[in-house]
This record gives sequence, C-alpha cells and structure tokens, in this order.
Amino acid sequence: MPGSSFGTLFKVTTFGESHGPAIGAIVEGVKPQISLTETDIQVELDRRRPGQSSITTQRKESDTVEILSGVFQGKTTGAPIGLLIRNSDAKSTDYSKFKDMFRPGHADFSYQMKYGIRDWRGGGRSSGRETAMRVAAGAIAKKILVPYKIKITAYTLAVAGIYAKRIDLNSIESNPVRCPDPEQAKLMLEKIEEARKNLDSVGGIVEALIQGCPAGLGEPVFDKLSARLAAAVMSIGTIKGVEIGDGFKVAEMRGSEDNDIFYKDGKSIRTKTNHAGGILGGISTGEDIILRVAVKPASSIAQEQSTVDVHGNPTTVKVTGRHDPCICPRVVPVVEAMLAITLLDSLLIQKSVNG
Amino acid sequence: MPGSSFGTLFKVTTFGESHGPAIGAIVEGVKPQISLTETDIQVELDRRRPGQSSITTQRKESDTVEILSGVFQGKTTGAPIGLLIRNSDAKSTDYSKFKDMFRPGHADFSYQMKYGIRDWRGGGRSSGRETAMRVAAGAIAKKILVPYKIKITAYTLAVAGIYAKRIDLNSIESNPVRCPDPEQAKLMLEKIEEARKNLDSVGGIVEALIQGCPAGLGEPVFDKLSARLAAAVMSIGTIKGVEIGDGFKVAEMRGSEDNDIFYKDGKSIRTKTNHAGGILGGISTGEDIILRVAVKPASSIAQEQSTVDVHGNPTTVKVTGRHDPCICPRVVPVVEAMLAITLLDSLLIQKSVNG
Amino acid sequence: MPGSSFGTLFKVTTFGESHGPAIGAIVEGVKPQISLTETDIQVELDRRRPGQSSITTQRKESDTVEILSGVFQGKTTGAPIGLLIRNSDAKSTDYSKFKDMFRPGHADFSYQMKYGIRDWRGGGRSSGRETAMRVAAGAIAKKILVPYKIKITAYTLAVAGIYAKRIDLNSIESNPVRCPDPEQAKLMLEKIEEARKNLDSVGGIVEALIQGCPAGLGEPVFDKLSARLAAAVMSIGTIKGVEIGDGFKVAEMRGSEDNDIFYKDGKSIRTKTNHAGGILGGISTGEDIILRVAVKPASSIAQEQSTVDVHGNPTTVKVTGRHDPCICPRVVPVVEAMLAITLLDSLLIQKSVNG
Amino acid sequence: MPGSSFGTLFKVTTFGESHGPAIGAIVEGVKPQISLTETDIQVELDRRRPGQSSITTQRKESDTVEILSGVFQGKTTGAPIGLLIRNSDAKSTDYSKFKDMFRPGHADFSYQMKYGIRDWRGGGRSSGRETAMRVAAGAIAKKILVPYKIKITAYTLAVAGIYAKRIDLNSIESNPVRCPDPEQAKLMLEKIEEARKNLDSVGGIVEALIQGCPAGLGEPVFDKLSARLAAAVMSIGTIKGVEIGDGFKVAEMRGSEDNDIFYKDGKSIRTKTNHAGGILGGISTGEDIILRVAVKPASSIAQEQSTVDVHGNPTTVKVTGRHDPCICPRVVPVVEAMLAITLLDSLLIQKSVNG
Repeated sequence: MPGSSFGTLFKVTTFGESHGPAIGAIVEGVKPQISLTETDIQVELDRRRPGQSSITTQRKESDTVEILSGVFQGKTTGAPIGLLIRNSDAKSTDYSKFKDMFRPGHADFSYQMKYGIRDWRGGGRSSGRETAMRVAAGAIAKKILVPYKIKITAYTLAVAGIYAKRIDLNSIESNPVRCPDPEQAKLMLEKIEEARKNLDSVGGIVEALIQGCPAGLGEPVFDKLSARLAAAVMSIGTIKGVEIGDGFKVAEMRGSEDNDIFYKDGKSIRTKTNHAGGILGGISTGEDIILRVAVKPASSIAQEQSTVDVHGNPTTVKVTGRHDPCICPRVVPVVEAMLAITLLDSLLIQKSVNG
Repeated sequence: MPGSSFGTLFKVTTFGESHGPAIGAIVEGVKPQISLTETDIQVELDRRRPGQSSITTQRKESDTVEILSGVFQGKTTGAPIGLLIRNSDAKSTDYSKFKDMFRPGHADFSYQMKYGIRDWRGGGRSSGRETAMRVAAGAIAKKILVPYKIKITAYTLAVAGIYAKRIDLNSIESNPVRCPDPEQAKLMLEKIEEARKNLDSVGGIVEALIQGCPAGLGEPVFDKLSARLAAAVMSIGTIKGVEIGDGFKVAEMRGSEDNDIFYKDGKSIRTKTNHAGGILGGISTGEDIILRVAVKPASSIAQEQSTVDVHGNPTTVKVTGRHDPCICPRVVPVVEAMLAITLLDSLLIQKSVNG
Repeated sequence: MPGSSFGTLFKVTTFGESHGPAIGAIVEGVKPQISLTETDIQVELDRRRPGQSSITTQRKESDTVEILSGVFQGKTTGAPIGLLIRNSDAKSTDYSKFKDMFRPGHADFSYQMKYGIRDWRGGGRSSGRETAMRVAAGAIAKKILVPYKIKITAYTLAVAGIYAKRIDLNSIESNPVRCPDPEQAKLMLEKIEEARKNLDSVGGIVEALIQGCPAGLGEPVFDKLSARLAAAVMSIGTIKGVEIGDGFKVAEMRGSEDNDIFYKDGKSIRTKTNHAGGILGGISTGEDIILRVAVKPASSIAQEQSTVDVHGNPTTVKVTGRHDPCICPRVVPVVEAMLAITLLDSLLIQKSVNG
Repeated sequence: MPGSSFGTLFKVTTFGESHGPAIGAIVEGVKPQISLTETDIQVELDRRRPGQSSITTQRKESDTVEILSGVFQGKTTGAPIGLLIRNSDAKSTDYSKFKDMFRPGHADFSYQMKYGIRDWRGGGRSSGRETAMRVAAGAIAKKILVPYKIKITAYTLAVAGIYAKRIDLNSIESNPVRCPDPEQAKLMLEKIEEARKNLDSVGGIVEALIQGCPAGLGEPVFDKLSARLAAAVMSIGTIKGVEIGDGFKVAEMRGSEDNDIFYKDGKSIRTKTNHAGGILGGISTGEDIILRVAVKPASSIAQEQSTVDVHGNPTTVKVTGRHDPCICPRVVPVVEAMLAITLLDSLLIQKSVNG
C-alpha cells in the first residue's frame, strides 16, 4: 500500500489506525531555521479535535502531539519532523459488534475486498482519525507560509441545503458550524440538531479562500495547480466533489460571461472578475483561489439500517457510539491543511523553475 | 517543469506545443505480448480530432500517430512506447496578433508570470492540443483493459443548461454533441449554434460511467481512487470541477439517504443504490463508478473583449480563428482516456498488494 | 529535504536524529495477512545494536522497537506500519564540545553548508543511528520474502587488508567480525584491536550474497536492478564504493573471460560461471547476485586531529566517546536490510509486468 | 516497465530500441529563457557517436537530433523538450541469426525471462544505443550548469590493466581512448588493437572529475548525492562498479589516513586532502567530486562461444558485426551526461531548501 505520502518537495507521510496504539507522520522538506514548537501544531489540532462542541463527536481524545525529530533548540534543522499522537480514548469494544458486518457508507467492505483482512476497530486506517496527521503537517506548512503572506481560510458554506448568505471571515470561529454567516449558522445548527434527534446526519459544502497566492504556481499539463488541489481535498474520506472558481456553474455559462477581463491595477495586472477562481491553464494568476468541496453526511448513523454480514447474510446495524451528525466544521481545518501542504509544495517546486 | 508525467506503474509522459514541430508521448508499463498497431490508437484520436463536425473547430489536423518503439512484429515488448504526431496544419500567423497581449480566460498571463517567456502560438504548451497525447496513451490503456472487462464510457450530460433526460449509451456517437439522449442533443445543438452566431461559446457537463471495475482498486489515505481520478480529469485544461456519485448533491442529503445498503446478489455482495458512485473510503466497491466534470465554455470567442497588452496597457482582442463553440464533445474522449490511464495504473498497483 | 523515503511499492520513510527523543519509520506496501510481531524486527535490530561485542561501540541502546500501526491481532492489514524506537542512552553532553567545530570525516561541515544549522549532538540526522530504521524495515521485507525463497546474506570479506580466504556462511555469526572465514577473522580482530589501541579505526569490505532471486527483476534503462541496489547501499553513510559480480576486476579482463556461458541445467537455463554477479542488462538472471561495498574506517577516532571551528579558526579535536574501531560487523545487517527492501520492491514491480 | 525516467525536478524520460524507427527523450525541468539549439546537443552526441575512430564500432549512424518542443525562437520556454533521432543505419538482418539464441554477456536471456518476448534486433531496448538520449539530455543539463561554473570531465583512466600515470585534462580528446595521459594511451591502444585481432574485447575504468560543485548538494539518508550519482552511472548497461574518492582503497586504510583535515583557505573552509572525493555524509563539501566506474569488456565478440538457443539446446555463436573492442572512450560522454543530469537535479532540489 503506497498511498500514505503526499507531496514532492514538501512531503507528508502518515501512519496509524483509529484504535491502534498511535497515529503519526513524517514531514519532509521543512525549511531549516524556523521556530517550531508543539504548540504551533496543537492549535490546529484543537480545531479538528472531537468534543469541541455539542455537534461534534464526544470522543475525548486530547490529541496531544509530540515532535520527535527535526527540531533542535526550538528551530527546525531541515531534517524530517516525526510527529506522534497516542490514541488515548479508543474504545474498541464499541466496535466489536461491527467486526463481522459491513457498515453502510463505510469502507469496511471495500477494504475487505482489497486486503482480505481489516482492522474493524473504528474503521482502522480508513477512519477520519488519520486526518489529524494532515492537520498537524498542515500546521507546519502554514507556519512556513507565513512570510509568503499566503492566507488560507476554509469555512462551512452550506449545511443541509442552508447556505451562508454572506462571507464574514471574522465570524467563522464564532459559531460551532464554522459558518462565515452567523445568522445562517443558526439555521444550520437547527438542521444538525434535528438530524441528531432523528438518529441521522447531514451533508454540506466547505469553501476555501486562498489569499495572497503569487502568480505562477502549478505545473503545466498533469500537475496543474487545479489538479493538485483537487487530489489534495478529494483524498479526504468524506469528500465527494470539488470545484474551483465558478465550478459546475460554468455548465450554464457563456464564454463571454466566464472569461475574466484583464486590467492594470497599479503595477499589477489583475482581472475584474474571478470566475476562474485564481487559476488559468492550471497556473495561479495571483487572484484569490476559491475552491469548494462537497461533504457527505456522516455514514455513522444510530438508526437501524439493513446490511449484510461478512458472509453476505442479511442483518441490521445501528452505528451507535460518538459520531458527528455533521462533519463540516471538523472538515474545515483538514481542508485548510491539505491546501497549505499543496501550496507550499508548489511554491518550493516553483523556486526551481527560474532558479 | 516537472508535471508532464502521469501514473506510477502505467506512466504517460508527454511533450509538445500547439504550433511546434510535433507533439509526442512516452508510455511506460505497457504489458508485453499484446497486439498493438497504430490503428488501435488512431481510432481514438479520430474521436478527438478537430473538424469532425460543424460544432468542432475546422482546423484540419489529420493527427496521424506514429509508433516509434515498444512494438516488435505487431506485439508490445514491455519497452516504453514512443508516440509522435507531426503538427501539420499549424497556422502560427493566426496567432501573431496575440503575441503581445493576454487573451481572457487563457493561460497567456499565468505562463508569462511563471516562466517570463511564452510560446504565443496557439497557447503553446497550454493548448488543448496536448490532450491528443492523452487520448493516444489512453487508447493503449483501453486495449490493455479489454481482458479485464472494464468499460469506460463518457458522454455529454449537459450543455448550456440543457440536460440529457435519459442515458442511452448506444446513442452517444449518433449525434455531434455525444449526448446519450438524442432528443435533448438537438436542443443542445441549437444552443451551440446560437452561441456560435453570437460569437460566443457555451459550457457543459461530461459524465463518465465505468462498468466492470473490480472492487479493491485505489489506495488508502492520499492515493484514494477518488483522488487519483479527480487529479486525472482536473488536469484537463478546461475542467473546473469534478464529482463522484451523488457529488455536490450530498450537501442536501441525510446519511440515511446517502448510505447505500448492502445485499447479497448471487455470490456477490452489492449495494441496492449507488449514491457513492462505486467508491467507498477511496477504494472501489465493484459497483459502477460514476463521475462528472464541469466543462467551461471555450475561452476563445470571436467577439471583442477588453484586455491588456504585456505592458499592462488597455487594448481589445477578438479571438478569431478556428475554435470550438462547445468543447464537450471533444472532451469526451479525453476524459475516457484519463480514466483508462488511471484505472490501469491502479489495477497494476493492486496486483502487488496480495501478490 | 526529501530523501527520507526509499522504494516505490514497498516504501520506507524514516525520521530521527541520534540524540533526539526517538527514531522511527513508516513502512508502506506490506503484504496483508502475514504474521508479524515486534520480535521479528528485534532479532535483526539486535544484530545492528551497539555493545554487542568488544569491537562495537559500548553505547548501551537497548533499541526496543514498538509497532504502532498496520498490525491487527498479530497479522498485517496492508496499512502502513509505524515503527518507533526511543533514544534511551543519548549522552548529548558528550557532544557539546563539538558544537562549534567540524569533526574531520563527518557531515558536520556539509550539513552546516546545506542548512545553515545543524543538530551537533552525535551527528544528528547524519548519524549512523538512522540505519536502525533501515534494519527494522528490512526485517519486515525479509519476512515477506521468506515464501519467495530469496535469501540474503552479508558478511565481512575484508578488514584492514586482511581478506577472508573461504566463504562459510555458517561461520559468519561465530565471530564478532561477522567474517565467513573464522581463521582470517582472528587476524582481522587483531588489526581492529591494534587500531583501537592506537586511537584509530580501520576500513573493510562487506560482501553480500543473494540466493534464490528469480530471473526478471529490475527495470530497463534507469531503474536497472544494479542501479537500484547500488543506490540502496551507497545511501549508507559509511560506504564509498559498490561493485557487482567481478566488479572493478572487469577493468583487467577480456570479453571472452567475462562473458558467462549459458547451458541447460535440468529445466533451467543457467550460466557456467557468474562473472556478471547475477545481473545482465540490469535484469536478474536467476544466478546468485553478488555485491561488495567498501566500508570506510570510522571517522570518529580518539586521537588528536587538526580541524577548524565554525568560524574557520584552527583548533584540534579528539573524538572520544563510544565508537566502533571497525564498523563492518554492524554494517552487515544494514546492507542485508537495504538489499531486502530493494529486492522486495523490485519483486512487487515485476508482479505488474505480465499481470 | 517504469524505469525509463531519471530525476525529480530535472527529469529525463527516454524511449527507443536499437533497430526500431527512432529513439527519443522528453526532458523536463529545463530552465526557461536560455538559448538552446540542436547544435548544442549535437556536439555531445558526436562524442558518443559510433565510427569516430578505428577503435569504435563502424556503424554509421549520423545520430542527428531534432528538437520537437520546448524551444521557441531559439530560447527555452520551460516546457518539456522533446528530442528525436531517427535510426538510419540499423541493419536488422545482421541480428536475425541471434533471434533464437541467447548471446553470452547480453541481456537477451534476462529480458526473455522478464517479458516472455524480446526485440532481438541489436539488443532492442537493452542496447547501448539508448545512451545517445542520455547524452542528448546531458547536453541540455550541461548548458544549464554553465553559469553555475560546475565543470564535469570524464576520461579513460585504465584499459586492460594499463593505467594513466598522470591526469592532463587537456589531453583527453587528443587520443581515441580519451585518456588524459597520451603516453599511456598508446599502450592502451595497443591492448585494444590486440584484443580486436583476437576477436576479443577489453574492459577498463572511466574516472570523472566534477569541479566547482557547491557545498550542500544531496539529501540526507536515502538520497545522498553519493547514492544518486551511483544510481546514475550504475544504470549504464556496461558498468559493474562505482566508487567515490578513495573508494575501495578505504578497505585498507585507517581513519587517521582517510579523514580529510579542515583548514581555512581565504574565506572558505576546505580540506587539505580529498580522500572523501568531495562528499561527506552524502552531501557535497565544495571539494572536487571524484568518481570511478568499472567498464566491462564489450560482450559482443566475434570469436566462437558456446551458448544455448531459446529452447535450451546447446549451440555456438559468433557476435560478428560492428562492435567496439573497448567501450571506454564512448562511455566517457555517457558518464558525463549522467553526472550532469544528477547534479542539476540536486541543484534544483537544493534551491528549495532554504528558499
């Protein structure tokens, strides 16, 4: 199983199952001589942590990260950074009832078909728990990006058909949905609570805004920035779609509407509109990059569902336990992390182009 | 500029500009001892070729492919296959008027910012012409996939807001839009003709159906099949979004609706519905894989648009020449090619898992 | 700093400094459903461990490995295996005297030039300590190779100009030099003891014999098995040369001597001699693979040497501490590990060729 | 068959068989805005070309290279450069007699075992002819390296037991052996002529000197510069060993002899000796890099040799045709090319480290 690494020059490799002893990562390509402490990483991990609010799982992982290498006397050395989080609140017994059956919407069946074996405790490797390591690595990427003035902000744009009507970046962390429109956030919360009461879950859309990205990132043809960003977010387990700029709306547009007109703004050349979402021909233009992902409703729901056991016999299952009725708010930091990792990698590759 | 390669075990590397001497590819990981001729490739190239119908560009490239290596006495040898197409009808003079300006919606500006230089003849490396090599490599992948019974079919699902109402795979090639609903295809054609008359272009949606994909393809975490397929199609210049299964619709769904219920069908375990689009936890389930991409309206439109020249001075531009008012029908074989390349690569990787 | 990963389908990524909190690795591409315990790995680690005998460093690392993922109920699951060893006996104070100077023969200077910073405690990332993780990953590779009947045996062929005169594979572990000729081993030991008394160190040659390797491994052109094996062993810090088969002796041979003659042996085609060392045109032939590496004398010597401090001022240094006067016996398991990793990776790649 | 690509940021991918229609390459990561013409490449190709002198094969390939992309108006654009050489003097009939047998020392057998099929015309993909594309790509790398003042010079150090006694870089091209010692070159020539008369061939050693390499190139652990350089040259078909600095001589040295002493030279820190060959801990030190490769005697010899046919039946073979009795002089430009490609790639990677 290759597939646990992402990136070329800034590269993240992860390991770990939901209920194994620990999860961890190796982060390569870290710029030397920058200050880095566990706190820099913990701040981001705490945004992804379960149990933050009433609408996230009540699993009580403190998710305390330990830096095992690559930092010496508070500074990075250029050596790979080993990261470790012990799994502290892994109640495997919760899962023993699932060991002989396939939970609908989960990877139980596909993993079984792939490997002929699976760690049935909490989804094992397929658990969303692996995203903690994306967030940890992303925190390092974000720290390195600071002097480049690239700012990545994700937020919940829609939940269960309720859309934010305005984007106030300062309001995102003011509500448990991480919605930039606090009024609509209330309606979203109602939908989420309703779903929980009905032993159900709801899906949504997370949008990301990348400000300050320089022009010229991304590579022609197969490694377009759009392709790399899409791979980055589509590798998050719960994501079923991604679009950049106007996205699927282009299907109903004319070229004269979709083309962004260039003009001179001071010393820069910019576009009057940003239908392209900051990327033309796969290369960044210097405009804001705008990207949206479709977040499916959590597969773990406590109502009774039909399914089969590992022998194919019909049975039923209730996925009780501590689950998120809406995963969007916790997807937000994961999306930010993957975008940070991807952009930093593109930035490092671009350094070689004219170098 | 890395970025001209795609794949790990089945790997395609391409070169070539729209108006340079030639375009070409090196295809590695080709199974030995299979029959392969230039005709196998030409058939697919002819589906992408300009000038097929009134709604595609009238550029008259014959796009004749030459196999330069890797085939001996009609059989593949396992050695990389070199492919070459000479550019025969490249009218660079058409483009000289664009050499000092940035065409809206094109990669002129972003390439200039990346490299400080650009081949302004027809978009150079950023031209859709590079997709001919994807199609050529995809034809080889398709040929190798034949004994695996994996069938990949793409078609135009929507154009300018008109959607196919039924999916008849046998009707796709019956109309110039490559729409599986011949009735709606007529309405689409009207929209396309109207756009052409208005010196404009229209966008659309291309859908792909992958039948017969075995369960177990794709790798956990970063190289999920969903992530690889998304990268594959998002690397096509004109694509602004991708979704799998219910895609963005999940944003309005509940878990109880989105979860596909497992049941036993003869000796197989299957799902009653296919909201997931054939992929759970990033690994194929054996159900049909369904994927849609958003195709932007062609950026080359003949009406006058404002823009700036390379110095930032305001000017106007009409992108006259031989352009597609709707690129969807020609995107269809490109999408199929990228999916074939990606699936074959995943299949080869999977061979090593339990091997 | 990319560079901490090795392999394509069987892939090892490591982290860790000599005197940081821990060293570790992520091993991807592990076949599912095989039994694996920490003991399988510990056995190999104990062969590399310091303090095994009078001629290895007396540093007392127990080097206890912990498996953090990828194994469930005693069986591998196909998920990446996280490995961790805490650094228990890291006396950093031993090294504080070196923090402002460049030790001759060490990477202090080149790391400083590369990163502008270095972890001066025991060589940091450049320490031979990282090879523990190669050995750990190699132990997993060896376990997977068992059913393939591929056997990898390395041993000390020469030390300080004393050569083994016969190769008795059963005698390797009978003496602290790991020499397959116990008589010559005694002479080697004398040389090593003499070096130690003189506050000096000695170099040597380690040879590896790979038995049972099937024909057909390795890829044409750049990824020849010879190139991959060479990269594998030349990435060990102390190695200054590698040769396969007759190696540098070919420089004095004629084609008629060097060519191995094919003949039929039962149902197999074999060669009467094995000057090629089991590899022709970069692809394995099925004959034994024979490879030798040049091991430099340990750079850490306790006698006074001239050097400069970080400002370039002349100074002197005695690298006292717990060091190996001859590193060969501890290089043996590291070479075996790297060969096992490389062969397994080649084997997995070959599975895809005709698959 | 992956394996036809080399490099990460500066990447070369090749195709082509000895007697197919053409050989070619795609070179990625070429710095934009540098002047590049076919002549820049042809100069190097002419050094590798057959028929240069009495001691090289009399095959009359003009080896005329064509640039197919990536250069616009005489300047590179950053796009990948497609290179093509048509095979003009490929006399396949010469080889038809070998189609059912395995030539000793050649890859016929190992390819047959790997793929179950082989292009028997002149070795097909395993032919040394593929090295023309290494030389072509290397010429581009050399051109890009010019402003970095890195100079790579290879030469024949030994042939058939005769060694150069002095290294006069200006004399290398003065004799057909490419030996830096014209006196010894005469003795070498005698040995080569003698071998030819005996229908035999002789081996040798090629040494390379890299001057002006900055400190800091290469990556820790697996991608050490030593490992990358070793892989680069060991991937050349005819090479059986590689050593850096003192190489295998270290096996007879003491640490006090092998350690190079640091001193201050003007503003630089240098070493008084260069036993390490310019690399410490896998990272370049700024001293000259010195590397030697063992070149086996050409396997194609015209005397009768025993072998088996593809069914294993005993037979005999005389590999008549146009072959080099000593391959060293033609290996020289190939070694230079591989070193240039590797160093440029390392240089580009290093740009990202502190960037």
